[in-house]
Amino acid sequence: MKFCSSCSAPVSLKVPEGDNRPRSVCDTCGAIHYENPKVVVGCLVIADDRVLLCRRGIDPRSGLWTLPAGYLETNETTEEGAVRETWEEARARVDIDSLYTIFDLPYISQIYMFYRARLRDGRFSAGEETLEADVFSERDLPWDKLAFPVVERTLKLYFQDRENDDFPIHSESIKKRPIRR
Amino acid sequence: MKFCSSCSAPVSLKVPEGDNRPRSVCDTCGAIHYENPKVVVGCLVIADDRVLLCRRGIDPRSGLWTLPAGYLETNETTEEGAVRETWEEARARVDIDSLYTIFDLPYISQIYMFYRARLRDGRFSAGEETLEADVFSERDLPWDKLAFPVVERTLKLYFQDRENDDFPIHSESIKKRPIRR
Repeated sequence: MKFCSSCSAPVSLKVPEGDNRPRSVCDTCGAIHYENPKVVVGCLVIADDRVLLCRRGIDPRSGLWTLPAGYLETNETTEEGAVRETWEEARARVDIDSLYTIFDLPYISQIYMFYRARLRDGRFSAGEETLEADVFSERDLPWDKLAFPVVERTLKLYFQDRENDDFPIHSESIKKRPIRR
Repeated sequence: MKFCSSCSAPVSLKVPEGDNRPRSVCDTCGAIHYENPKVVVGCLVIADDRVLLCRRGIDPRSGLWTLPAGYLETNETTEEGAVRETWEEARARVDIDSLYTIFDLPYISQIYMFYRARLRDGRFSAGEETLEADVFSERDLPWDKLAFPVVERTLKLYFQDRENDDFPIHSESIKKRPIRR
């Protein structure tokens, strides 16, 4: 941020009175512009005993497999956002079971939330930012071609929990940027 | 948002190509400025069998009781944010047990997350934005003077769950602005 979105004057990084960290403060009108972490929501979609994955058509990690997910919009619930992203990326209509995993990623100021869901009518296809969509059993899953650590971790937790047929909400932090192979 | 924070030119609300909802788009440099929901984090602090509440010294809901909580900052985990806010608002050092409640509040584009925590050394006092801090048993709690529905709901869930000594993570949506008494 270089300019004030309220009055167009330049902003400077400074600690506002009564605050304890630097913010973008307008040199002219005094408006304080806060930066906040973003929430990413998505679904772990189950079809029979397989999971729905999308091969990413955009960077980062284009060509690798992910769970359908994207930024939560204003005025929607995380569940609504997860259902919307699943439609946009995998053209899949789903019924939500419940919230399943929550990840803090402080190094990129993001929070990921995945819902467990069931494919409603067996239909899916590639959305605009997806190269292909497909369903995989645990054995056939492209474990070495997954796009993000939160995806791998959610899948591992799911196959573990499935053995006990018990799916509690998992909350975890991934504190460091992963090393890319 | 009236002006572009990258180049200072005026912005207009329009649907960018390949998108499906209006964003603030710069008329000159084309930068798209997204607006995202915010995350609020806090603690349900237990001291013996009582809970720590803060009486708010700022609007909204000044004078009413709340759990210590505030906006998550960039580059911190939700747990770190909850601990920080508990220090800032109630001057209390805490040990976290686990994530406890998550609320979607789409009408104000916020997500609340409360952690269960234990008071470390018995000490607490009013932070800068707090009129007073105090601990309450279930019976003595100021139920009709609580600041927010997420606070009341978290407290109710806690006293229910305490009967079974089992505290699963609860995820709920509050879809409408509450009617103020």
